[in-house]
Amino acid sequence: MADSGNPSNEELKSVRDAFLKELDSGMKFWTKHSHDEQYGGFLMCLAEDGEVYDTHKYGWMQCRQVWMYTYLYQHFEKFRTPEILDAAKKGLQFIREHLPMRHLEGRAQKRCYFAVTREGKPYRVQRKPFTECFFAMALWGMYEITDEEALKDQAMAELEAYAYWAREDASDLGAPVLEGQPSVSMLNRPMMLLNLILLMVKPDSEFFARHATWCIERILKHSQGGYILEILGLDDKPLEGSEGRHLNPGHAMEASWFLMEYWRKFDSGNSKLLQTAIDEFLTRPLEYGWDEKFGGVFMFLDRDGYPPVHLEWDMKLWWPHCEGMIACLMAYQHTGDAKHWKAFRQLYDYSFKHYPDAKHGEWFGYVNRQGEISQTLKAGPYKGCFHTVRCWALCSELVDSILKK
Amino acid sequence: MADSGNPSNEELKSVRDAFLKELDSGMKFWTKHSHDEQYGGFLMCLAEDGEVYDTHKYGWMQCRQVWMYTYLYQHFEKFRTPEILDAAKKGLQFIREHLPMRHLEGRAQKRCYFAVTREGKPYRVQRKPFTECFFAMALWGMYEITDEEALKDQAMAELEAYAYWAREDASDLGAPVLEGQPSVSMLNRPMMLLNLILLMVKPDSEFFARHATWCIERILKHSQGGYILEILGLDDKPLEGSEGRHLNPGHAMEASWFLMEYWRKFDSGNSKLLQTAIDEFLTRPLEYGWDEKFGGVFMFLDRDGYPPVHLEWDMKLWWPHCEGMIACLMAYQHTGDAKHWKAFRQLYDYSFKHYPDAKHGEWFGYVNRQGEISQTLKAGPYKGCFHTVRCWALCSELVDSILKK
Repeated sequence: MADSGNPSNEELKSVRDAFLKELDSGMKFWTKHSHDEQYGGFLMCLAEDGEVYDTHKYGWMQCRQVWMYTYLYQHFEKFRTPEILDAAKKGLQFIREHLPMRHLEGRAQKRCYFAVTREGKPYRVQRKPFTECFFAMALWGMYEITDEEALKDQAMAELEAYAYWAREDASDLGAPVLEGQPSVSMLNRPMMLLNLILLMVKPDSEFFARHATWCIERILKHSQGGYILEILGLDDKPLEGSEGRHLNPGHAMEASWFLMEYWRKFDSGNSKLLQTAIDEFLTRPLEYGWDEKFGGVFMFLDRDGYPPVHLEWDMKLWWPHCEGMIACLMAYQHTGDAKHWKAFRQLYDYSFKHYPDAKHGEWFGYVNRQGEISQTLKAGPYKGCFHTVRCWALCSELVDSILKK
Repeated sequence: MADSGNPSNEELKSVRDAFLKELDSGMKFWTKHSHDEQYGGFLMCLAEDGEVYDTHKYGWMQCRQVWMYTYLYQHFEKFRTPEILDAAKKGLQFIREHLPMRHLEGRAQKRCYFAVTREGKPYRVQRKPFTECFFAMALWGMYEITDEEALKDQAMAELEAYAYWAREDASDLGAPVLEGQPSVSMLNRPMMLLNLILLMVKPDSEFFARHATWCIERILKHSQGGYILEILGLDDKPLEGSEGRHLNPGHAMEASWFLMEYWRKFDSGNSKLLQTAIDEFLTRPLEYGWDEKFGGVFMFLDRDGYPPVHLEWDMKLWWPHCEGMIACLMAYQHTGDAKHWKAFRQLYDYSFKHYPDAKHGEWFGYVNRQGEISQTLKAGPYKGCFHTVRCWALCSELVDSILKK
């Protein structure tokens, strides 16, 4: 087998076990350090050893942790425990009480605060609609476990509001409309909607009929000339300037596996979709996003090689590697082509060399271009119990299913 | 002289000439590449060699370049040219036409857009009042040259609006007021007001009486326990959490020389003020801000050594080094203490090793912790014709005056 470039059963088992080991020690970290027994919800700014360095609670992370727990509870025997379910319920109670902007009217009531204080008082507002998406995921995850209709209804109401903001009119979000600001198509809008559809929506539903094809079409438009562009003009052409050339290879690889999941669940006769998802959204971004000098996937790039304007452009963040590993394993699972296993190993070897913390559990997230840890935090405003844990869980499941083939 | 640690005249001359050489080649860069002959104003996103990589015009940078040109025109024989004056006038015309938010009412009309398109259409709004401050500086600089009363009046009206936002009520700026968000004292508010007072306000004026002492008192409150804290609670105590421990050593060193200028111009009998400005705002920040491992001043730090949450915390940006050099030379000028010359040389040696570009002129601005250039741009949304040029100009003048002592 090794000659073909395909992994042996021993290699597959060792990879699966490595993911399960991280999942185990990562979850020990989260359950030990992040549960706020005093105020509910999760403490989300945690140093290397789990010490709380700030008590603000960030909406993305609160919601994602609830969803992650409901996923593990449903998919892993080991985590089907009263402790996990109870923590997810308490987390959900905190976010239902404190995140929604109840003082607003109509659809805007579906908006959520981006961050609250430890006790739950509003602290930050973001004019992007993503806390709301993660809130929908959290509600839905708990609905799947409890069958409680009120959770389902609230999740679907958040989803409907998001779909409206993403497709029709985002003025509820409060961003100013400026004459010199072109209307644009952002890749993250249909990607997030697709992610929610994959989790929450049945293919025979009215919601699916209205939105699923739109998501796929919009995402595919962002593939242009061998690059996945984050932002397009509404004429589907690249914008002038830095914004129009902005590349986020990790984001493209995440889109790749969302597209593959759509193909697998709803459109498995469409081999062209699978091919595009793999070639254009995974293989190419991994080519142009890989740092040949020091290894790892760059955070951001400029398509034409002009100076990327984000200071962190050359850092190697954990999450593009997590998303890339999931996508490579899916590509290998669906095609059996050893080149995707090779691509997976490239990301896997880099990740397991740079991010794990054998002492305290959970991965470090922020590595500089050279491969040194530049921020020792385990949790912060944009890193929580999500990309790592989802990657370890999905990858262990994917390798398992490859083993069983 | 060398034994005492004081510089010889040869060393002083060589340092002065090095600054003048950078000033010369830097200004060649700006005049050659940034003047937008087609639409007016300045092109502000320039690659290493001056190529325009984006045509958006950022308000801070447009205004600062106008002010910088008026400063050079007034202070340097070499730049007292029709070309410099004409470019400043055209730049000022562009910003007067396109930056103010004329559709608003009352004091809010004094607000400016943060960025506009090449032609001047509104592109970005910032909920901080600093474009307005730099607009006031630009107007004032041109008033000093032309004696045109309308420029003076408009500059003072912007200054009055800023003082109101900084001291009384910032609700014109549009940031939401949230229950969990404490009212805070930000160091940048009184610093910027002091900077404008130093440039624009006479000590016998009513504006000076109302605001000057407030600025000094507020700035000094931010020095606590050997650190300059960027943010305080309104009770003048450090806030809990990351915000409360946030350090920006370059910003502290910039405050140091604003305080020294205040002392020199308006309060030269107050030796305690001079001592505090030097010991607490310059010497200490340079101690705790210096990277003993790779050299250079860190961008941000956490006072207690917790993980700094900004991804760029360990980068070595040009501007803290520029502001630090000005402050060290002033401290040396006012005290004659050789330790400030030594501190100056530490910053000077680092800067001249890492930032200059002998080929194209103007300094690189973004160096990683290890000292390698991580962003090759010469101009971008937050780097323009300002910190470098102001540093070269002021430092050459300061060394000149030390030579003449």
